[in-house]
Amino acid sequence: MIRVSFTQMQAEFKRALQKVGLTPDSAALCARILAENSLDGVASHGVNRFAGFVEQIRQGYFKIDVEPEKVASFGAWEQWDGKLGLGPVNAFSCTQRALELARKYGVACVGLRNTNHWMRGGAYGWQAAEAGFVFMCWTNTKPNMPPWGAQDSRVGNNPLILAVPRQNGPVVLDMAMTQFSYGRLETAQRNQEMLPIPGGYDIHGVLTQDPGAIIESERALPIGYWKGSGLALLLDLIATLMSGGQATYQIGQQEAEYGVSQVFIAFDVTKSGASTLVNQVVDHVIDDLHKAIPVSHDGQVLYPGERALRTRQENLANGIPVDPSIWQHILEL
Amino acid sequence: MIRVSFTQMQAEFKRALQKVGLTPDSAALCARILAENSLDGVASHGVNRFAGFVEQIRQGYFKIDVEPEKVASFGAWEQWDGKLGLGPVNAFSCTQRALELARKYGVACVGLRNTNHWMRGGAYGWQAAEAGFVFMCWTNTKPNMPPWGAQDSRVGNNPLILAVPRQNGPVVLDMAMTQFSYGRLETAQRNQEMLPIPGGYDIHGVLTQDPGAIIESERALPIGYWKGSGLALLLDLIATLMSGGQATYQIGQQEAEYGVSQVFIAFDVTKSGASTLVNQVVDHVIDDLHKAIPVSHDGQVLYPGERALRTRQENLANGIPVDPSIWQHILEL
Repeated sequence: MIRVSFTQMQAEFKRALQKVGLTPDSAALCARILAENSLDGVASHGVNRFAGFVEQIRQGYFKIDVEPEKVASFGAWEQWDGKLGLGPVNAFSCTQRALELARKYGVACVGLRNTNHWMRGGAYGWQAAEAGFVFMCWTNTKPNMPPWGAQDSRVGNNPLILAVPRQNGPVVLDMAMTQFSYGRLETAQRNQEMLPIPGGYDIHGVLTQDPGAIIESERALPIGYWKGSGLALLLDLIATLMSGGQATYQIGQQEAEYGVSQVFIAFDVTKSGASTLVNQVVDHVIDDLHKAIPVSHDGQVLYPGERALRTRQENLANGIPVDPSIWQHILEL
Repeated sequence: MIRVSFTQMQAEFKRALQKVGLTPDSAALCARILAENSLDGVASHGVNRFAGFVEQIRQGYFKIDVEPEKVASFGAWEQWDGKLGLGPVNAFSCTQRALELARKYGVACVGLRNTNHWMRGGAYGWQAAEAGFVFMCWTNTKPNMPPWGAQDSRVGNNPLILAVPRQNGPVVLDMAMTQFSYGRLETAQRNQEMLPIPGGYDIHGVLTQDPGAIIESERALPIGYWKGSGLALLLDLIATLMSGGQATYQIGQQEAEYGVSQVFIAFDVTKSGASTLVNQVVDHVIDDLHKAIPVSHDGQVLYPGERALRTRQENLANGIPVDPSIWQHILEL
């Protein structure tokens, strides 16, 4: 592993994205989001996926000359059309729009259709929480998880993000409905690591801890067995209805994953009290969590987002760890 | 097991509730909600908990002479005070209020503080979906689940409900953050059944399928290990902030579980198209799910709420199965 500074990574990403035709603004925004994903320790949706992201732009899966457009407005709920544009740009814009609407209405929902992979959903949770909002968002995906009791993939792993503002680092949960996200499975496969607990089935229908076997079979295990399967279905239904977009089964009828549906829900929690009060409420809950007795002698009980914050601070100081061959490839893009 | 008709169960519940002082309206509403929970096959939050519900009213944990009151309004988001009243009455009222607000704003959120156990959260999902709304709600609880990596209970099992309307029976997911809800653990213990998969730890810290051992240790396993633990924390934080009420750690400082915080979020999905169109979108997703290849030869892949609908139809026709001693006890209340 080499270490690349956040500034340099962002600059290289921006250069490569402008080279494939992105406007300076879109290139800067995508570069920042993907570099921040790596900065926070989520290389699978940052530097490790960057070349693939550029390749998908080259192949025309993401349109780079469009902007998301509001297509319907029902007060605090709006529907936007992503026009098959850049996933991170569309998600960032709709998050901002949800925050604007929440400032006006207290709570607001933006449904986004015809969009593309947003990379790390947690990025939009951080965006909203750092602006002081309580926030939820999720996306549907192609069918990549069998519903409970089934052999074939009919539901998506539909990542769900919940975020709450906090002065010393927001609380941000970013979780796919599979026990392990495909990003995580790919990273484990790349590092030749087995999973700590079974994460799915192999092609023979046997539970396995081998990430490669699960990627091969496409039979990842839902979190909580039947519960994560049910949650994935409901998230797909709600994303489809709120955005007026495609459901997972429709995405699965295409030759590749594009034109997904997403939901962004923001709450302007400061309406009920100053942000210092909001911060106090959250801090008290986190303080109590930190008092938990760890299972292992040297263990620590962390809140969602705590590890990302530590990684961010370390990587800002020392540079972001990158596989040298991956970095070399990016420099040549 | 004996079979008791829905009408008779509702009538006996109402009688017993009026005897402990409920107004005819409150008694009728609570009787209907608890009898419907049993009708749908959730006896643990219906007939099997009825005597305990009455006992808690007798002990004064639920105030019976109060009504929930709006304490703050921020447009599409309102805060209500449940005044330590009856949980099902408060939750029903705030669901109705969320639907009213969503009719006006497209999306709406009601935060409810100082309320009590709502029994089966799914009841409010059915209420909203049958009125044609997309709906989410959740509650916090006392600390009854250790966060991931901890020995002691610091988070609640915070049931989460998501619901979508559908003409032939809504899609309603009702899930606690524990792999098995305490209601389910109690039912399994009563029936002297082991759990199909490990559901938590025994007092020695060993994963177990014995429901009694988990109830004893209070170390239920979160769904998806660290994921369900994180989700429980976020649901607690959001419920606390949106309602202005107590967090799980504060409920845990009391001598018993009361004064919990809840959130009700409604989406008037018909604003984007006729309810027949909404129904079509949902039906297509369900139709695709039903095409899944079952793992077992005689298996079936069901949507959340499908089993409840079948049970409801069967119990309406044949009566609700009840343990004779439990029913006898209720008749004597």
